[in-house]
Amino acid sequence: MTESRIGVGVDVGGTTVKLGLFSERGELLKKWEIPTDHTDDCANLIPDIAASIRGTLSREGIGFERLMGAGMGVPGPVQADGYVEVCVNLHWKNRYPARELSELLSGIPCYLANDANAAALGEAWRGGGSGAKEAVLITLGTGVGGGVIMNGHIVPGRHGLGGEIGHMHVRDDEAEQCNCGGYGCLEQVASATGIVREAKRVLASTEEHSRMREKGDGLTARDVCDLGREGDPLADRVMETVGRYLGLAISHIALTLDPEVFVIGGGVSRAGEYLRNKVQKYYDQFTPISRNRGRVVMASLGNDAGIYGAVRLILPDL
Amino acid sequence: MTESRIGVGVDVGGTTVKLGLFSERGELLKKWEIPTDHTDDCANLIPDIAASIRGTLSREGIGFERLMGAGMGVPGPVQADGYVEVCVNLHWKNRYPARELSELLSGIPCYLANDANAAALGEAWRGGGSGAKEAVLITLGTGVGGGVIMNGHIVPGRHGLGGEIGHMHVRDDEAEQCNCGGYGCLEQVASATGIVREAKRVLASTEEHSRMREKGDGLTARDVCDLGREGDPLADRVMETVGRYLGLAISHIALTLDPEVFVIGGGVSRAGEYLRNKVQKYYDQFTPISRNRGRVVMASLGNDAGIYGAVRLILPDL
Repeated sequence: MTESRIGVGVDVGGTTVKLGLFSERGELLKKWEIPTDHTDDCANLIPDIAASIRGTLSREGIGFERLMGAGMGVPGPVQADGYVEVCVNLHWKNRYPARELSELLSGIPCYLANDANAAALGEAWRGGGSGAKEAVLITLGTGVGGGVIMNGHIVPGRHGLGGEIGHMHVRDDEAEQCNCGGYGCLEQVASATGIVREAKRVLASTEEHSRMREKGDGLTARDVCDLGREGDPLADRVMETVGRYLGLAISHIALTLDPEVFVIGGGVSRAGEYLRNKVQKYYDQFTPISRNRGRVVMASLGNDAGIYGAVRLILPDL
Repeated sequence: MTESRIGVGVDVGGTTVKLGLFSERGELLKKWEIPTDHTDDCANLIPDIAASIRGTLSREGIGFERLMGAGMGVPGPVQADGYVEVCVNLHWKNRYPARELSELLSGIPCYLANDANAAALGEAWRGGGSGAKEAVLITLGTGVGGGVIMNGHIVPGRHGLGGEIGHMHVRDDEAEQCNCGGYGCLEQVASATGIVREAKRVLASTEEHSRMREKGDGLTARDVCDLGREGDPLADRVMETVGRYLGLAISHIALTLDPEVFVIGGGVSRAGEYLRNKVQKYYDQFTPISRNRGRVVMASLGNDAGIYGAVRLILPDL
């Protein structure tokens, strides 16, 4: 009997690189991390990844010939042919990172994707989407990212804007400017940063008691979520606003693509059912045309979504 | 030399059925219409279509053996396998119309699509999209319809809501209810009906002079477009509102799917560059994240978009 083949998923972040060994059927066998070396504009990064994969295979007693390929997610726009024009966080310009990795791994197939898109693919495949062929992931972190999966494949978009849900204009009465140059983007209210900002606005607008005030300048999005869930009325009002605009954005996507499932991920998604119920309420309100439409679920892979999605890029159709 | 093969495109409407004979390469060779016979819940409709195709081939001296297939667009939701649960305008229930047509045409391949989706495919392929692989059509007629094309294929959506752009909530300050049950849908402002309604509101809100007043109750969307283009300030203000919400909806879609091109069709699109420029202005305003994104063009096939898209369903990849 021949030994089964192995795939590698790599999720390159600004601080650490997450790696995972997977069976051909997509089971995570081992995961580990290495630091992201920024020396000389990250010149060592791809060699570090290749060496770490070879070293781990060796330590695990897995012959290199069993390696079927590696998928890699990177924090920047990736063109269809794997070209990265610029990746600010990694100081990359005009590179084909997957080709470089392949050369260092004896020519095995290596594919590249944007990290948010890879995470979406991971959640669609093995996470909250649990096998959905069409899924849209909305990641609520420092910013709001997203990824669109159709027919089991990432939709990067013709100009790399596919899944840039965080910059949908949802709020007309927003006077502050978003990083993108717009006003009233989803990210301005539904990201961790946005939630804190909204909370501070609400607190400034009233004398009403709220336990959020006890946190002072150290107030975090997590505090707002937790206090809202525990019944603090002002914190709940903030989360209601977050739910409204998330529900609206999901409604827009449902009426464009009509995917099977929407997956809410990122740190803010730890708010769980409390947030999901609010999102669902406004999604229903803004999409009365049919009750028969994509469901909203919470992500389930946490920080592993990226390596799952990355390895999925090189696995055969399962 | 063998004679080239022929495809048929059929666009079934509530009043007439449009038909077209096309070359294998997609050139329209002949088009014609037959009335939609509503007798006995449209029992004669598919037989009429089959007979008309056979009759026309015969009159044109084209042997039936050259017929490679027929595509058909119908005014209602179509499931992926060609099943029509209900089609209100044609009194259909639980039918497979393309199978019925195929049986009456000696078993040639026949495929079915929703008519708005077929029109989108036609415009993407041979109309304003001129060969785009990803295109989104927005049809401004009595209502606002749409269709999404990805990779040269229709995206019907998992529950048939793909391209239901007309029911995107875009306007918070709308107190009147849309047919869908929502408030502030794109259709309420950008359809022919919506434009007239908006114009009447603007006229009622001011004593200001406008040539729209001369039209009285007979005011049409075309009047509003024409007068706006000719410089009537109030009509122009109405069209500015239309452009704003269309531009906003297009921005939402660009940040989800990022298609190559947006095609604006339907009767209202006769407003041409005057409307296109307004849409572009707000699309730019709401999508400052990148200048590199899908362009906005006007549809160019008029009433033929449906037969082009229908025949495309059965042509090989060109």
